[in-house]
Amino acid sequence: MAGKIMLTGDRPTGKLHIGHYVGSLRQRLEIQKDPEFDKMFIMIADAQALTDNAENPQKVRESVMQVAMDYLAIGIDPSKTSIMIQSLVPQLHELTMYYMNLVTVSRVQRNPTIKSEIQMRGFGDNIPMGFFNYPVSQASDITAFMATTVPVGEDQEPMLELCREIVRRFNHVYGEVLIEPEIYLPPNQSCMRLPGTDGQAKMSKSLGNTIYLSDPEDVLKKKVMGMYTDPTHLKVSDPGHLEGNTVFQYLDAFCSDEDFEKYLPEYKNLDELKEHYTRGGLGDVKVKKFLFNVLNEFLTPIREKRAYYEQHPEEVVEILRAGTADAVATAEKTLAAVKHAMQIDYFERWDKEYK
Amino acid sequence: MAGKIMLTGDRPTGKLHIGHYVGSLRQRLEIQKDPEFDKMFIMIADAQALTDNAENPQKVRESVMQVAMDYLAIGIDPSKTSIMIQSLVPQLHELTMYYMNLVTVSRVQRNPTIKSEIQMRGFGDNIPMGFFNYPVSQASDITAFMATTVPVGEDQEPMLELCREIVRRFNHVYGEVLIEPEIYLPPNQSCMRLPGTDGQAKMSKSLGNTIYLSDPEDVLKKKVMGMYTDPTHLKVSDPGHLEGNTVFQYLDAFCSDEDFEKYLPEYKNLDELKEHYTRGGLGDVKVKKFLFNVLNEFLTPIREKRAYYEQHPEEVVEILRAGTADAVATAEKTLAAVKHAMQIDYFERWDKEYK
Repeated sequence: MAGKIMLTGDRPTGKLHIGHYVGSLRQRLEIQKDPEFDKMFIMIADAQALTDNAENPQKVRESVMQVAMDYLAIGIDPSKTSIMIQSLVPQLHELTMYYMNLVTVSRVQRNPTIKSEIQMRGFGDNIPMGFFNYPVSQASDITAFMATTVPVGEDQEPMLELCREIVRRFNHVYGEVLIEPEIYLPPNQSCMRLPGTDGQAKMSKSLGNTIYLSDPEDVLKKKVMGMYTDPTHLKVSDPGHLEGNTVFQYLDAFCSDEDFEKYLPEYKNLDELKEHYTRGGLGDVKVKKFLFNVLNEFLTPIREKRAYYEQHPEEVVEILRAGTADAVATAEKTLAAVKHAMQIDYFERWDKEYK
Repeated sequence: MAGKIMLTGDRPTGKLHIGHYVGSLRQRLEIQKDPEFDKMFIMIADAQALTDNAENPQKVRESVMQVAMDYLAIGIDPSKTSIMIQSLVPQLHELTMYYMNLVTVSRVQRNPTIKSEIQMRGFGDNIPMGFFNYPVSQASDITAFMATTVPVGEDQEPMLELCREIVRRFNHVYGEVLIEPEIYLPPNQSCMRLPGTDGQAKMSKSLGNTIYLSDPEDVLKKKVMGMYTDPTHLKVSDPGHLEGNTVFQYLDAFCSDEDFEKYLPEYKNLDELKEHYTRGGLGDVKVKKFLFNVLNEFLTPIREKRAYYEQHPEEVVEILRAGTADAVATAEKTLAAVKHAMQIDYFERWDKEYK
């Protein structure tokens, strides 16, 4: 069954890291090849990033280019996938204004995703209106492209439900125009959350516990060799623990049997390595060196491709220009249908009526 | 001192009535002639009307044309004043999205104007997000046209103060771009609030106590003859009271000494008429007949001009098209300056940087 349309994206607040890769980028490469999907739109959500970075527009602006380079470096193919800059699709803002009339303040306030996001950001009583409104804005992002499918984590499900509510209410009040999106369920466990190199639950720039897709080899080595493992694994001979051991979590996410053949032929696969580690007698340094090799092999072509785009930023600009133009054309169709259904396509109506 | 720019407008939720005329339309005709003003923009605020009429878009759409005809009928001159349809100026929506990042939810919640408007509309806990956000949206309406001056009633002052706050915050964070608007203080008491024909404080379609600018002569006569006066004034010989007497309030707003000469030469002016009425011996019917003549003389040319536009709606369409195009061009300049200041004018920057 073909005909699916995917909408996904990222807030441009810094370069992308391997946590992004494991959590979502890898999935996108699969969707790009998936015949069930007619199209994927990737949104660089700068307008959304500005909702809680209003005072730091330069960071957002610079990150737009960085994120675009990261996309291209990992293999997002602009001939198949449209990469757009959110703020340059004005139809999104317009849709948001109309959807805002279909949602109450208390409905947004009760949304668990919004509640926890507000708490996480420590806004206290100073929640910017723009941030508060982001579930509505997100509904525009999704519906503007008639997306059938959106990849959201479990914690974002209430947000998607609000989008579906807006769609149902719009279609009920004005007539069937919008499509109710579904959650993307990856065919296998290809999507997971990677902890920070320090063992913290999330990679974050401010914690300095990230490995960027663009990290050079020496930086990568330093970061991997300094990773958090098992604090009770003091001597090589001690039995090691896998739970909460970031090095093994990274290996889970990245290594294959071929990596063992190439870089650690004493073991056939990750299971054998884990078995030795938990039994005792396997040092962290050896495992880390292996992880470094695995990650370096993964990152080398990405780094090279990225270096090309860094030297040819004008090509990235053209790709963004084309992707954004495609997004604008699609969103414009939706907006026209929305305004027609709402009967506020004045001149079109009058020109028919009075001429 | 020239150089002032006025932004004003109406929510299209029905035809305009003589309460609108006395409260704001008359003022606009004065501003249209005032050399201090370079320009006036009149906004038919359909998007704002939809914030609490989401389920009734047809009413809003039809009212847009009615309101436009009312403007032209009273003498708004499209060669001097741009009449625009709000929803057709997409730059307004875009500005709103960025301004929403500069205002907190609690700041809007505390705004006395918003509080009383919410109460007045009986939303209870079901305040539409769009309605809640309307002070921010209004700030876009004002700033998009670089308006120096806006005519707002006392009850709307806190709203304008919020707009000024947004302007100051924007200019502080991103650099001086926006203009802080000032309240328009009419040179004389030309602006007042007219009660309903039944003596209720406000004219309202739902109360059926309005006199429309477009009412035909017979309708006008019926409405005037049925007006609320002084309930204690039972016999002609009784002394009458002026306070709360709508017929005299309307005369205050509309009649001139010339009207007496023409229609009621026994009196020189309104003071003499009032004196007789309070002394006793003057019947309501006589005063009402006079008021009818005054209003009918006022409304006759308006009615005739309106009839012309009713027969030539295509001319109204062209006037709205031109006014909206002018508004779009102006708002686009502001938006470009806003995005430049926010550093999110991506392609403009990149094209300079990389070519």
